[in-house]
Amino acid sequence: MLRLSPPDREKLFQSPRLRVIFGGGEANVAVSLATFGHAARFITAVPKHEVGDAVVNELRRWGVETGCILRQGKRLGIYFAETGANQRASKVIYDRDHSSIAEAKPGDFDWDKALDGIDWFHTTGITPAISQSAADLTLEAVKTAKAKGIRVSIDFNYRGKLWKYGKSAPDVMREIVKYADVGIANEEDCQKSLGIKADIDVRTGALDRRAYEALTGKVLEEFPSLSRIAITLRESHSADHNGWSGVLRNREKFLTGTSYDVTDIVDRIGGGDSFSAGLIHGLLTLPGDQEALEFAIAASCLKHSIPGDFNLVAEKDVLALMQGDKSGRVQR
Amino acid sequence: MLRLSPPDREKLFQSPRLRVIFGGGEANVAVSLATFGHAARFITAVPKHEVGDAVVNELRRWGVETGCILRQGKRLGIYFAETGANQRASKVIYDRDHSSIAEAKPGDFDWDKALDGIDWFHTTGITPAISQSAADLTLEAVKTAKAKGIRVSIDFNYRGKLWKYGKSAPDVMREIVKYADVGIANEEDCQKSLGIKADIDVRTGALDRRAYEALTGKVLEEFPSLSRIAITLRESHSADHNGWSGVLRNREKFLTGTSYDVTDIVDRIGGGDSFSAGLIHGLLTLPGDQEALEFAIAASCLKHSIPGDFNLVAEKDVLALMQGDKSGRVQR
Amino acid sequence: MLRLSPPDREKLFQSPRLRVIFGGGEANVAVSLATFGHAARFITAVPKHEVGDAVVNELRRWGVETGCILRQGKRLGIYFAETGANQRASKVIYDRDHSSIAEAKPGDFDWDKALDGIDWFHTTGITPAISQSAADLTLEAVKTAKAKGIRVSIDFNYRGKLWKYGKSAPDVMREIVKYADVGIANEEDCQKSLGIKADIDVRTGALDRRAYEALTGKVLEEFPSLSRIAITLRESHSADHNGWSGVLRNREKFLTGTSYDVTDIVDRIGGGDSFSAGLIHGLLTLPGDQEALEFAIAASCLKHSIPGDFNLVAEKDVLALMQGDKSGRVQR
Amino acid sequence: MLRLSPPDREKLFQSPRLRVIFGGGEANVAVSLATFGHAARFITAVPKHEVGDAVVNELRRWGVETGCILRQGKRLGIYFAETGANQRASKVIYDRDHSSIAEAKPGDFDWDKALDGIDWFHTTGITPAISQSAADLTLEAVKTAKAKGIRVSIDFNYRGKLWKYGKSAPDVMREIVKYADVGIANEEDCQKSLGIKADIDVRTGALDRRAYEALTGKVLEEFPSLSRIAITLRESHSADHNGWSGVLRNREKFLTGTSYDVTDIVDRIGGGDSFSAGLIHGLLTLPGDQEALEFAIAASCLKHSIPGDFNLVAEKDVLALMQGDKSGRVQR
Amino acid sequence: MLRLSPPDREKLFQSPRLRVIFGGGEANVAVSLATFGHAARFITAVPKHEVGDAVVNELRRWGVETGCILRQGKRLGIYFAETGANQRASKVIYDRDHSSIAEAKPGDFDWDKALDGIDWFHTTGITPAISQSAADLTLEAVKTAKAKGIRVSIDFNYRGKLWKYGKSAPDVMREIVKYADVGIANEEDCQKSLGIKADIDVRTGALDRRAYEALTGKVLEEFPSLSRIAITLRESHSADHNGWSGVLRNREKFLTGTSYDVTDIVDRIGGGDSFSAGLIHGLLTLPGDQEALEFAIAASCLKHSIPGDFNLVAEKDVLALMQGDKSGRVQR
Amino acid sequence: MLRLSPPDREKLFQSPRLRVIFGGGEANVAVSLATFGHAARFITAVPKHEVGDAVVNELRRWGVETGCILRQGKRLGIYFAETGANQRASKVIYDRDHSSIAEAKPGDFDWDKALDGIDWFHTTGITPAISQSAADLTLEAVKTAKAKGIRVSIDFNYRGKLWKYGKSAPDVMREIVKYADVGIANEEDCQKSLGIKADIDVRTGALDRRAYEALTGKVLEEFPSLSRIAITLRESHSADHNGWSGVLRNREKFLTGTSYDVTDIVDRIGGGDSFSAGLIHGLLTLPGDQEALEFAIAASCLKHSIPGDFNLVAEKDVLALMQGDKSGRVQR
Repeated sequence: MLRLSPPDREKLFQSPRLRVIFGGGEANVAVSLATFGHAARFITAVPKHEVGDAVVNELRRWGVETGCILRQGKRLGIYFAETGANQRASKVIYDRDHSSIAEAKPGDFDWDKALDGIDWFHTTGITPAISQSAADLTLEAVKTAKAKGIRVSIDFNYRGKLWKYGKSAPDVMREIVKYADVGIANEEDCQKSLGIKADIDVRTGALDRRAYEALTGKVLEEFPSLSRIAITLRESHSADHNGWSGVLRNREKFLTGTSYDVTDIVDRIGGGDSFSAGLIHGLLTLPGDQEALEFAIAASCLKHSIPGDFNLVAEKDVLALMQGDKSGRVQR
Repeated sequence: MLRLSPPDREKLFQSPRLRVIFGGGEANVAVSLATFGHAARFITAVPKHEVGDAVVNELRRWGVETGCILRQGKRLGIYFAETGANQRASKVIYDRDHSSIAEAKPGDFDWDKALDGIDWFHTTGITPAISQSAADLTLEAVKTAKAKGIRVSIDFNYRGKLWKYGKSAPDVMREIVKYADVGIANEEDCQKSLGIKADIDVRTGALDRRAYEALTGKVLEEFPSLSRIAITLRESHSADHNGWSGVLRNREKFLTGTSYDVTDIVDRIGGGDSFSAGLIHGLLTLPGDQEALEFAIAASCLKHSIPGDFNLVAEKDVLALMQGDKSGRVQR
Repeated sequence: MLRLSPPDREKLFQSPRLRVIFGGGEANVAVSLATFGHAARFITAVPKHEVGDAVVNELRRWGVETGCILRQGKRLGIYFAETGANQRASKVIYDRDHSSIAEAKPGDFDWDKALDGIDWFHTTGITPAISQSAADLTLEAVKTAKAKGIRVSIDFNYRGKLWKYGKSAPDVMREIVKYADVGIANEEDCQKSLGIKADIDVRTGALDRRAYEALTGKVLEEFPSLSRIAITLRESHSADHNGWSGVLRNREKFLTGTSYDVTDIVDRIGGGDSFSAGLIHGLLTLPGDQEALEFAIAASCLKHSIPGDFNLVAEKDVLALMQGDKSGRVQR
Repeated sequence: MLRLSPPDREKLFQSPRLRVIFGGGEANVAVSLATFGHAARFITAVPKHEVGDAVVNELRRWGVETGCILRQGKRLGIYFAETGANQRASKVIYDRDHSSIAEAKPGDFDWDKALDGIDWFHTTGITPAISQSAADLTLEAVKTAKAKGIRVSIDFNYRGKLWKYGKSAPDVMREIVKYADVGIANEEDCQKSLGIKADIDVRTGALDRRAYEALTGKVLEEFPSLSRIAITLRESHSADHNGWSGVLRNREKFLTGTSYDVTDIVDRIGGGDSFSAGLIHGLLTLPGDQEALEFAIAASCLKHSIPGDFNLVAEKDVLALMQGDKSGRVQR
Repeated sequence: MLRLSPPDREKLFQSPRLRVIFGGGEANVAVSLATFGHAARFITAVPKHEVGDAVVNELRRWGVETGCILRQGKRLGIYFAETGANQRASKVIYDRDHSSIAEAKPGDFDWDKALDGIDWFHTTGITPAISQSAADLTLEAVKTAKAKGIRVSIDFNYRGKLWKYGKSAPDVMREIVKYADVGIANEEDCQKSLGIKADIDVRTGALDRRAYEALTGKVLEEFPSLSRIAITLRESHSADHNGWSGVLRNREKFLTGTSYDVTDIVDRIGGGDSFSAGLIHGLLTLPGDQEALEFAIAASCLKHSIPGDFNLVAEKDVLALMQGDKSGRVQR
Repeated sequence: MLRLSPPDREKLFQSPRLRVIFGGGEANVAVSLATFGHAARFITAVPKHEVGDAVVNELRRWGVETGCILRQGKRLGIYFAETGANQRASKVIYDRDHSSIAEAKPGDFDWDKALDGIDWFHTTGITPAISQSAADLTLEAVKTAKAKGIRVSIDFNYRGKLWKYGKSAPDVMREIVKYADVGIANEEDCQKSLGIKADIDVRTGALDRRAYEALTGKVLEEFPSLSRIAITLRESHSADHNGWSGVLRNREKFLTGTSYDVTDIVDRIGGGDSFSAGLIHGLLTLPGDQEALEFAIAASCLKHSIPGDFNLVAEKDVLALMQGDKSGRVQR
């Protein structure tokens, strides 16, 4: 997907320049995993023309395998994103209808080839929100992956401005999540994507961790396939200043992670995706769930300081932060 | 419409920056006429969100009346345009489907209000190429204008990458042109938009003016409503270097204009539109058709030296060039 | 007026680039009111050449009526403004002498035309500071407006680097303010523009609201025409971090407003003007003075997060902040 | 002086960015001479604030001695310059009134100190065009220099948009030129600055060298102090393409120089000044007038390929061009 | 290698910005071949830190296989390149000593792995110019490739500013070229790299094709392994305007190619490399040597219109130019 | 030295642009002292080509005497510096080996000339870290200066990524510091550069001033030539937010200075150098050590708000901050 953003905290089109940022939920996770050293393959559809070429090139640049990307359809999804400041909220204008991925449908992908050699499949709640066919395709994907014994993780990402094709998010997402092993969400995704009630109001800025213990318990209860559910916790003090943390519940216990204070946010888009990538990396390489959770939080904390969607930090940078070096000193 | 172009003769997305240029055939004519001092009103549909606001603001900036622009539909048409250099051609990737104007239809506009006080109505062959409803709307517009005694001019603009909804350009355009008083075209538009055969190959770079005498004769013969048909003549030596001139045939004679050599093109998009605006201005304010033709050619010659779609030159700059000052000397 | 600023917190001329920002007290108010949906007309004088054209175009872009702007005089006022950071103060170098507005004088404007259909007239203490003739002109304007039954508001804005033509600010301003219905000021304007003593030192960063109750009482006492006096309260912790609030006294009571903490200021120039526009909008459209004050504070709070002089936020953004959403969350 | 120019061949204020270029006739000559290795001192007045600091810093950067620059007055002269393209002329809007140098007057400078150790004094016809006091100051300067036995050169530079204080250029310039040893001019300066008639029309683009033989003869005849008069010859085919050459007449013969074809002008402002600097350097270091003329033409030919006012080419680059290497090959 | 260039035809460091361009002879060929659809592998050494990462990422972006790049050594070679204009030559300042590739040596690469599956090996005369060990490494590479039956092409590229380690270019290059099947050179490379005399002076700008017939004959005579020698012909009219063509001699005949006039060069660095890539592509996919030569010339002609080292044009763009469309018309 | 940094908090090479910043420890001190009004001379070696010219020009721009800079050697030291944000640390990649200064050696400078008229000589621990010859040169310099009765100050700056030529920092630095009158250090320099043990861990972010009292006592004890040792104290809360203060011990007492909270760091590179310059200026011009310390802290506090290495603030700006105006209010 193509993000177009004005420079220097300007309002959209205030001056006639836009920054080009290629990204999107699943792509961001793939780039972050490739940056951590994994062989990451991205499966999507983009148009055959130069705009599609550019997405492929950008993913390839960061080490993502792009050989299974379908080149079909007419357009790449676009969104215009204005970065807020202080009390001014960031704004997103979607222009994603009729994109290649919105019009892709079950049967378009050769899953045997696309999933060959894969041991973890990650998807999000954004794709099923775009169109019925994209929802069907997502369901086909997770079913196939599950059937092949591939571990499936899903970020429940709720996007209110999408979901316009006649179905509610829970109608669609609850079916898809049945095939997942690891669920990931932010403060409101469980409620809005899965329709699970919780006594949480994200607009106050403050967070009640006990409410999340209850909420995650309900999620695991309702979705038996899930071995874990992780939730990112964002305290939105302003567009520049957020608290950032996360919790994880597995079948044994409820874990809480370190809280970071991010006082000078550079770009928060992609924050959740960098948490997903960090969590996957942590679960695959670190000794326990607590360490995986800490890695995910630290990785995504660092993302907030990088412009663009992608979390271009190396594993060693994340480990250094996990070990407590938050000082931001010059390394020289 | 939103044009997105890379800077500094780069290929699209070579670096992650895009210039924002609002424009499009009819908008360009409106801005140029406003710059020449006319009260110009732009009639179109754009979405209600910030991208639509930006178009309206930009037109307003250059003095165009925007009060009759409909705010409806979901998206603004976009195209990516890469400016060529030397033998490398400029490239355009359209992303215009489902735009507000593509989905506008007869009945959407209150023509009594929109055409109130108007004495000249200009449209182009681009809008009817987008969708059946846009074609129907264009026909409604020219019929209504004609019925109100408003003079109608049409730029036959042929866009091969559009025209995908099942009709051929001549099928649609020949009906629309019946209501026009002034026809405007480039070297190939008469052939491709109206289906009128002529022995002209625009890819050689050289031009045979006699062929245009024959061609324009046929046009006037086939379309009795037309009082004049004007044709821009572009000799495309390279992406940087074009010859530029024009001819005009009225019911009495065939007029040829001055030829300009544009050796260091800054931006040729909008060149034809600036000719249309110049011709309308000339026909409304200058003593005869020869002067009008010369004004149109000189105005559009100058457009080639301005980045963006709009021809931001004043009437006095055009008159100076018509009077022979091609020297480009510093005025100080 | 033309503001020229270096990019990226650089010192002036550190690198050879400048951002162009058109603005100035009254223009900023006009743009903000137009953005809130009012028909706003700007009355000033700018030179006939391209620099003057650019001001007119920019105002028109944001929806301000420019038909009564006089095109006379030789130059547009310029100022160079360097944006500070942390403890480094922002700096302004004025180059405004001999500008079109500085040389405009009583009699230059056709007030019947300029004030036709107008129900609110706003001006500031900046114009009378520039020259004797500009002071005379301001007095002529407020007298005429008052005589026509138009409501008059005045921002007392004190600019110490101006006021060089031989009169003190109170000598001039006290006469002008006699015709005002609504007075607006920042912490020190009442003292320096009107010569009203108060026990307030703005350089400490902290604010004593009770002192403002006394001060506003004195203002209303000394100027019987005033129905209201509003004061913006800025706690200057650093160039990046300000507290922001305001108070309003009408003939019945002293109202205090919400305090906002603006921790990452993008551009504070125009903050006071956006308060004026918010207050006018509030007084015209909201049920009471408290709501008007809150709207003014919230609107101007948001201004601090936008580069340039103009407060490009919509009414709905201000209302959302008034209703308590300070979280700056991404709207998607 | 501060030149403000839009980037990328844009019209002024088309986008909100300006390039900062410090320069001006005499400064340009000083920088070029310093770049050729001379100890060059610049004598002028600039204001005491940061804008004045920036001029001094910039001159110092290129090796010019700035110790005798007076820091007085209120403003630095500004001009807005839009670079043309093709048939579109470059435009200059002066905003120089009331600048420090315009208000400087005889007696302000300590000439004994300013001219200490100096063996060549250069000035231009631009300064006397600004104000009566600047004209008086110029006269004082050349008289003093001449009296001290310092060689004086004057570029007759005619600027039609200046000369507004009531005197004609010839009235003033003829008196000043009496003290010069070397006169320098472009095609029209002799006529307009000195009032010497010649049958030359610079707007045709073509040049008749014989006319210049006659013209230079008249100049030497009328000004007995002059040992040489040199004239730059510019054939203005377009804003991008000029022919460039020069002639020189001394008391013995009329010399013509090499003609260069500059097909892709980057910035022609400062072209004449770079000729002056080249001529002074040539007369001081090369064996004869023919070589000096060739050096001057080659140096100023190269200037046309450099953005900004200053001719940042080294002596060896000029010599290489004089020796015939016009190929622009990569040196690697 | 890292090229750092100032923007907008500025002199180096004129303003404090540099464009980053990764490239270099062999890398440019690899990217162009990948863009034409070949599987291209790049074999080099770059340091382990972020600067090395950036090279690898950039190559990967354009589809080059980077798995065999050694990550060793301390620095990446840098050069500063200033793009000339008109008569002003482009300038290159090398800072390549002690780079990873300069310090790489025979034995560092696992050739079995690096050349696995490869059917064409291309190298240039630049690498052997850097250091003795790089020359030894180049010799090892071509010997190994030849022994494995891989076709070898060598661009003789002579770089006078390198070759500082004590050997002359012919001493080293003649030994390396013994293993080549296809030789590629520009006008002076044969003479300077191989020490073969020819009556050619490249500084005149004009070219005598018959001299090249003789020269290429000598090359084939002296190097029996060569099946073909191709030479690019550049007529350097100015830094902006070059003629561009090429000749090729095989064991049967001397072929001359189309001449292109490149009047507005955007960036000529990488021109020769794009010719090499075009020739390799042509020899591998087109019916005969004449077609291969034409493809090589057309491809590299287009390169001159693209900023940066890489020739980012697709095969179909080259074929279109070969078929005669030099018009640079907008494709829409 | 040439610093190359990405714009806008990007990661290195994230987009293909770099900011050029000339600087380096001693140069930064020289520029700051010149800005405070001192005649500052910079003594170093830079290459003869355009990159070396650029350093000289930049120093000259800010008023530093450059006449004693040796033009020799092959390259200028470069480093790539990525500015961190929040918890993301800034990163530096050095590419300084084989620079002109690294290869300069005792005997290269004519010290009689270089030190003529000098009363204070400042150097740092960075130069001796680069190479044995640079260490020898530094020793030669301080010995010579001391012998001439010039006061010597040394910033102990420890750079762990340098010091690769086989000696430890204390081995070299302890000998050099013997000749110093004033020592300057940051929290860890005393320990790492001089090998003096202290119970201080700079990574916690918090500072224990008593530990510094002990540490500075040891330094003065071990180095009898030192009259004073000053230490900057940085509390690194994040890359954007630091506490900043300093202490100074002379032979009589231990002084502590004001603490500043720098919440929105623009660029912290050069912070220590600006402290050195402030301290030297303070010791030379202010009544006592306490005032000198306060001036040094305030000056370097302000540096954190300026992009680039140089502290471009005037003496009056520093004095204003010392007198307590931290409000960052607009000065107008």
